[in-house]
Amino acid sequence: MAQKPSIPKGTRDFSPAEMARRNYIFNTIRDVFALYGFRQIETPAMENLSTLMGKYGEEGDKLLFKILNSGDFTDKVDPELWNEPVKLASKICEKGLRYDLTVPFARFVVQHRNDIQFPFKRFQIQPVWRADRPQKGRYREFYQCDADIIGSDSLVNEIELLKLIDEVFHRLGIRIAIKLNNRKVLAGIAEYIGAPEKMIDITVAIDKIDKIGLENVNAELRERGLSEESISLLQPVLQISGDTESRLSQLDSLLENSEIGKLGIAELREVIEGVKALGLRSELDLDVSLARGLNYYTGTIIEVKALDTPIGSITGGGRYDNLTGVFGLTGVSGVGISFGADRIYDVMNTLDLYPADTLRSSKVMFTTFGKAEGAAALSMLMKMREAGIPGEIFPDVAKMQKQMKYADAMGIPFVAIVGESEMQQGKLMLKDMTTGEQQLLTVEEAIELLKKK
Amino acid sequence: MAQKPSIPKGTRDFSPAEMARRNYIFNTIRDVFALYGFRQIETPAMENLSTLMGKYGEEGDKLLFKILNSGDFTDKVDPELWNEPVKLASKICEKGLRYDLTVPFARFVVQHRNDIQFPFKRFQIQPVWRADRPQKGRYREFYQCDADIIGSDSLVNEIELLKLIDEVFHRLGIRIAIKLNNRKVLAGIAEYIGAPEKMIDITVAIDKIDKIGLENVNAELRERGLSEESISLLQPVLQISGDTESRLSQLDSLLENSEIGKLGIAELREVIEGVKALGLRSELDLDVSLARGLNYYTGTIIEVKALDTPIGSITGGGRYDNLTGVFGLTGVSGVGISFGADRIYDVMNTLDLYPADTLRSSKVMFTTFGKAEGAAALSMLMKMREAGIPGEIFPDVAKMQKQMKYADAMGIPFVAIVGESEMQQGKLMLKDMTTGEQQLLTVEEAIELLKKK
Repeated sequence: MAQKPSIPKGTRDFSPAEMARRNYIFNTIRDVFALYGFRQIETPAMENLSTLMGKYGEEGDKLLFKILNSGDFTDKVDPELWNEPVKLASKICEKGLRYDLTVPFARFVVQHRNDIQFPFKRFQIQPVWRADRPQKGRYREFYQCDADIIGSDSLVNEIELLKLIDEVFHRLGIRIAIKLNNRKVLAGIAEYIGAPEKMIDITVAIDKIDKIGLENVNAELRERGLSEESISLLQPVLQISGDTESRLSQLDSLLENSEIGKLGIAELREVIEGVKALGLRSELDLDVSLARGLNYYTGTIIEVKALDTPIGSITGGGRYDNLTGVFGLTGVSGVGISFGADRIYDVMNTLDLYPADTLRSSKVMFTTFGKAEGAAALSMLMKMREAGIPGEIFPDVAKMQKQMKYADAMGIPFVAIVGESEMQQGKLMLKDMTTGEQQLLTVEEAIELLKKK
Repeated sequence: MAQKPSIPKGTRDFSPAEMARRNYIFNTIRDVFALYGFRQIETPAMENLSTLMGKYGEEGDKLLFKILNSGDFTDKVDPELWNEPVKLASKICEKGLRYDLTVPFARFVVQHRNDIQFPFKRFQIQPVWRADRPQKGRYREFYQCDADIIGSDSLVNEIELLKLIDEVFHRLGIRIAIKLNNRKVLAGIAEYIGAPEKMIDITVAIDKIDKIGLENVNAELRERGLSEESISLLQPVLQISGDTESRLSQLDSLLENSEIGKLGIAELREVIEGVKALGLRSELDLDVSLARGLNYYTGTIIEVKALDTPIGSITGGGRYDNLTGVFGLTGVSGVGISFGADRIYDVMNTLDLYPADTLRSSKVMFTTFGKAEGAAALSMLMKMREAGIPGEIFPDVAKMQKQMKYADAMGIPFVAIVGESEMQQGKLMLKDMTTGEQQLLTVEEAIELLKKK
């Protein structure tokens, strides 16, 4: 029954070396989340399909992985549905895999609202699944790392999140630019150009300006039914330039007649000034073309780009005023960010930003040259572990060369050789695998030496 | 479109308090795995159904969660299959959710065998899914924590795993008994009672002796076709008692004519003596009735029970000689253990074994009494975080009482009050939430104080 094993397309195995790198990233993000007072939750991989369906648009519904009901799943289902796969699927599948962390979080907040103390600062680091067409850098299973504050409309939360982003990427060593916008400014722009009902069309189009250029954005606006006058009025907005203060002034005068626009500018000013007062290592740019497609944002919009390698957004987020409304809890404002762990992983790999000892697991490997020598070695290894030094023993009696080759391949920096002579002296020969240097030591001496390495 | 949200039966949300406790357990296990030289891998939640089917018996196949193929899943499927749900499922589902970590690990080893250095010491901590009937303490999504050494038949690996188990439960504070057996001894017993072909029946029956008693085991053996003579010969084996050395001697004389039985006894002796030479905090008991149902074990069998609360096995494992054979790689011996995280969590909760500060996240909360005061507070909070002190700010302007209530509910031990007077002095009033004591301090003084707490 031998089969050639493989895994589903778009999924990945992670080797020990890959896990070490990924853990470095996840631990860094987790540490900063905790430093900023966020508390971790987890939700199940499977949600009821009724929780997920209709939350990600028609396209999103198609990308949900659905789980076949257990047992006799066709029982009580109309066989006529055979030719209507969408309806049939909804009858034979009650559950689906988590598509993001945001909808499950909204569901969590509503379901447990009586047990939650607001404002609720939660973080969540879990995989999500999407039946997207697999391609380079896009997977069907990938991790999201989200932090949200829900139940507070204070802009202090935005300031905190921007500082948090700055701290995470500083620790990872990735130079970034943080782009900032506000959905109310986008609404103001739509008002200003006389097309308030077209705000979604406008934001979807101008969001692409970096990718397709101004001419193509204008063409798309025409297709989406914007008048020539509106498009013409939009041009100075899209050409706003200069430093942040200068951009804000230009916006100020353009949107002086839009109440919502002015509110958006005031919010931007408060966030930018608040962050500047605290100091920020990263670039912070006001970008009026930033919309992030997601229609649930109602205020601040945040996006992060890596400066030293061309890759899309590596982190993003914003404020939403009605995330939980769809589950029956209205009037709860929140703001959140999501770190794209897989893209960050790609950036870290491209720029080789990992500390030198990220891949190291064991600090020492003991040899085995016979039963008695092995027992002596094992006893010394246990003393090292008791002292907190991670280590292992080559478990099989084998030639020196084979054991050394293993230690070398594993990147273990020290080998403790316990042959007959060492065993009789109650000592070990500690070999530094980098320099080749050897020292005959007691286990206590070796512990002292290894603790310093 | 308001819905009352819920999650699928048998699944769980984990609140921040629950996550803190679970992380304490996972981190303890992970730390010891790393200390012992195990390296982490992860595999996808979804495996091809061809990888999973037939690996867990007929009952296991039914408990696999299957994932509906994307798109037009009925295309090219014979509608006649409507009345054969098992066959239909295999046509409309290519993927399933991981059922345990063992089969994916075997698949991983075979798939990546050219990149793996043997012996391969891997650990893996991930959720698994089973469509079991949900009941108290049994979930449809739960975590397994596995460590295996594959590609070495040295009994040093068994000794290491027993020491590792001892260390994990010592760190967690759970008093345990480790039960030990060897599949070869079970084979020897089957030989000794003249029913070598009935080894599986015998082990399945005697495995239940703790639960159903000797009489019922004998009845089951009769049902399974064992002769009265065999059952009679088996009685002294099942009544072996005394300390480990005495049990081994009794086995020695009973199985003196069984080659495989003697081999099993020799292995047990080597493992027990090896562990004793290193010292073990936990009880280590030889238990000839221990079989663990799993037919892939070929040597050592390990099971762990908590001493201070009645719950089933909380950890188990053993040696297998042909785990990867089903995927085409034969002759690779391995030994592994699996910690049952959810049962350990239940034991920890029942016995209240968590350190006092497990639930704590933020060490300090700053107040907000106005824009200016909030800004001053935020600036001081940032200094605390730079010093490594996790903290947060109540983000909204609110009454003192409300902010204090939040800090209290969150279990935050210190509140830094920054009112107008403190702000003007560039200081904060640090309130110890346990004693009620207040001190007017500079942020540097507060940092020094909090670092010691």
